[in-house]
Amino acid sequence: MSLRHALLALLEARPMTGYELAKQFDVSAAYVWHAHHPQIYTELRRLESAGMVEAEEAPRGIAATKRRYFLTDPGCAELLRWLAEVSEPGRERDAAYLKATYFEFGSFDLAREHFRGHLEHYRRVEAHWSAHADQLERRDTALLRRRLAHAPQHAHDAIVAYKVHVYRGLTERARTEVRWAEQGLELVDRLERDAGIPGDTSVYRPTPPRDQPSAS
Amino acid sequence: MSLRHALLALLEARPMTGYELAKQFDVSAAYVWHAHHPQIYTELRRLESAGMVEAEEAPRGIAATKRRYFLTDPGCAELLRWLAEVSEPGRERDAAYLKATYFEFGSFDLAREHFRGHLEHYRRVEAHWSAHADQLERRDTALLRRRLAHAPQHAHDAIVAYKVHVYRGLTERARTEVRWAEQGLELVDRLERDAGIPGDTSVYRPTPPRDQPSAS
Repeated sequence: MSLRHALLALLEARPMTGYELAKQFDVSAAYVWHAHHPQIYTELRRLESAGMVEAEEAPRGIAATKRRYFLTDPGCAELLRWLAEVSEPGRERDAAYLKATYFEFGSFDLAREHFRGHLEHYRRVEAHWSAHADQLERRDTALLRRRLAHAPQHAHDAIVAYKVHVYRGLTERARTEVRWAEQGLELVDRLERDAGIPGDTSVYRPTPPRDQPSAS
Repeated sequence: MSLRHALLALLEARPMTGYELAKQFDVSAAYVWHAHHPQIYTELRRLESAGMVEAEEAPRGIAATKRRYFLTDPGCAELLRWLAEVSEPGRERDAAYLKATYFEFGSFDLAREHFRGHLEHYRRVEAHWSAHADQLERRDTALLRRRLAHAPQHAHDAIVAYKVHVYRGLTERARTEVRWAEQGLELVDRLERDAGIPGDTSVYRPTPPRDQPSAS
């Protein structure tokens, strides 16, 4: 359950309404921890019940009010507790790699389509994360400026450098996927050449195996 | 929901009891798609209800019987349907990267502890996946030999090469994580030197921020 910690860390930068928090989540934390808006609102209510955030009423326009959430001392304590927790990295669950394990059941063209989709997706991801890392390095996001504004000077480099390191790491990850897909496309070309069967024909139809031929 | 397809693909190699299937899952598919044994048994029952696998009774010892599951034609069709489906890669959800984004709330020593744990984990993972890829390349796993035994000769290279490509890809991923953690450790050393504060002191305690100082 890391969503709650992403929200607490965002509110450490500045108090936000639920709407602002969800928007902010989309342009920063969402790249590291994906969540949909309804999950964010649900978690925000849980954090309020637990006393980790508090809401204050603020005017919206002339007649209406809005609720702005801010981090409380128990919220800060929970952030520190989570940070100190050293846990095993998550286990692998990758549908694309699982599928690639069995590409022989499809045609060479199908394998190409999968690898091309992977390649295009991770090229976009790489460009996006790389641009975000550059922006953080220039200290050029509204949230980061708010964060630095209330942090002591001696902490500024660390605040910036850790975030840059995360987004450079995500960029490298995306690059690794791009290379994997490129090498996959080369592999398919080689296999097709060597097998001498048309690209749109399945390489091998899976068949119900039996140890001993049976009556059915 | 890729667990079902991992199970169907394993049963394409040979019929297995639920116990054998769960064991086989642990030494192969589990590295790409993590699942616990109860989930595997539940999914196997669902596949049987859906007619995608069938059970046959086989003797176990002198007095007992065991149920061996084999893939049916509808099971093969489902495997092919899944394979043809081109879907967007999953979204990122990485607790380690999320945490690293906020390492400034902890000490330099804590950041080091996190990066070292990451490094050790992915060094083990890298060695493990690399060895598995080598074994597949030598066609030296019991499951792969069973698979090749009933597949046409022209498909053998593809059957082996796709699996090797997946495990080489996972090895590269692990290497990317190893490098990220190594660079993280270098970063912490540099930040500590520049900040001039002790390694066991928190760089910056998060504080409940307010836009305007309020009464509470």
